[in-house]
Amino acid sequence: MNGKVWTAALVVIGDEILSGRTQDKNIAQVASWLNVQGIRLREVRVVADVAEAIGDAVKAMLAADDYVFTTGGIGPTHDDITVDSIAAAFGVGVEIHPEARATLERYYETRGGITDARLRMARVPAGSDLIVNKMSGAPGIRRGNLFIMAGVPHITAGMLDALTGTLEGGRPLVSVTIGGFVPESEVADLLGATEKAHEGISIGSYPFFKEGQVGANFVVRSEDLELAEACAKELAGALEEKGYSIINGGL
Amino acid sequence: MNGKVWTAALVVIGDEILSGRTQDKNIAQVASWLNVQGIRLREVRVVADVAEAIGDAVKAMLAADDYVFTTGGIGPTHDDITVDSIAAAFGVGVEIHPEARATLERYYETRGGITDARLRMARVPAGSDLIVNKMSGAPGIRRGNLFIMAGVPHITAGMLDALTGTLEGGRPLVSVTIGGFVPESEVADLLGATEKAHEGISIGSYPFFKEGQVGANFVVRSEDLELAEACAKELAGALEEKGYSIINGGL
Repeated sequence: MNGKVWTAALVVIGDEILSGRTQDKNIAQVASWLNVQGIRLREVRVVADVAEAIGDAVKAMLAADDYVFTTGGIGPTHDDITVDSIAAAFGVGVEIHPEARATLERYYETRGGITDARLRMARVPAGSDLIVNKMSGAPGIRRGNLFIMAGVPHITAGMLDALTGTLEGGRPLVSVTIGGFVPESEVADLLGATEKAHEGISIGSYPFFKEGQVGANFVVRSEDLELAEACAKELAGALEEKGYSIINGGL
Repeated sequence: MNGKVWTAALVVIGDEILSGRTQDKNIAQVASWLNVQGIRLREVRVVADVAEAIGDAVKAMLAADDYVFTTGGIGPTHDDITVDSIAAAFGVGVEIHPEARATLERYYETRGGITDARLRMARVPAGSDLIVNKMSGAPGIRRGNLFIMAGVPHITAGMLDALTGTLEGGRPLVSVTIGGFVPESEVADLLGATEKAHEGISIGSYPFFKEGQVGANFVVRSEDLELAEACAKELAGALEEKGYSIINGGL
């Protein structure tokens, strides 16, 4: 309704997520951050620490989206293969970025000095720029519309922070949530009809089980906050008419 | 090293994950469960509530893996489009499964009775079997090597439980974790050399920041627990020789 919708994809690189050992936290934080930038996260792929898997996912997503982000695999150890995998997928070399080298040399000056392993974190696919990392020495990497970020969530957060406001986007998607102890199967028709009656609105229904009762939150999404608020108010009224107690903000 | 490695993919269906509103919990629990069954989670895709996105992801993963699981989008409301999307991708019809209908009728007998919306949860792609759901009335769906599960984590867990021991797999991947306040960049060469020296072993290095210090956990993975334990012990010894305190189980 308002011109171009900007989209992004996220490639999460990590055996530790696929093994179930680590609970991913980057999907939610990248998604929330993108939304504020007016960019929709269209798809996420979690792939193993395997060069072809990383390269294929990044290339497929670059063909489909305005921006592609990766998290993970840019540290100093043998299992950090993101940079090499992406360079290979692009058919370009890997080079030491002089500014990254200078940053790392400064960072490690009081921490035992630079080493070959630490210098690995200055390696970038040829033709890349850096993303500032205030948290630790090693920068993230930007190559065109591809953003290569760290996997440790608080470092990822710092890199996202450095990128805030620098990417072109559209209008953020806003949402208004209402909810209550409403079995969604009792109000399915009402939800569908309400969505249908409001152009530019989508309604998500998310059931839960709390305090021994089933209920649901209903999330009304739109690019237009007033539209979303009006629709949520109408839906809440209709649900209350059916005898349910509805809480703004959801349960 | 021990014959066929069985692999699986997971397709997480949900605008609520892509919007950042909901923190996914199914990736980790499906991954952990698969691992116990001797099946490796090879890839995860999180896709939007869009029929083509769901169908394309499921078909691509079925071509690549022994098993494909989906979570989300099988409830009674208008935004639950998983069954229709998958049936369309397969070019088959959607039918009411008689056993699912009977289960739902029983479940809702004391909960206001069956309705058209509730009956939506008995719809399956033609040629499907059911996955028992002890938590609520609506069953999951099995169609060949495709498993269509609920998105609410405790219901997903119940469906996984119902499938435990029913899928053919290989040897589970086991892991031994050690860790400490070890900057991974100081021991990168040792980690790489240790992995290289042990066939059938992979070592992951996962840095963290705790109590104001950097450190890392090192996860030694293998199909052979004895092998993993021996390698972890050797690595711990080498790290202690360098002056680090190492904790079994990791920090």
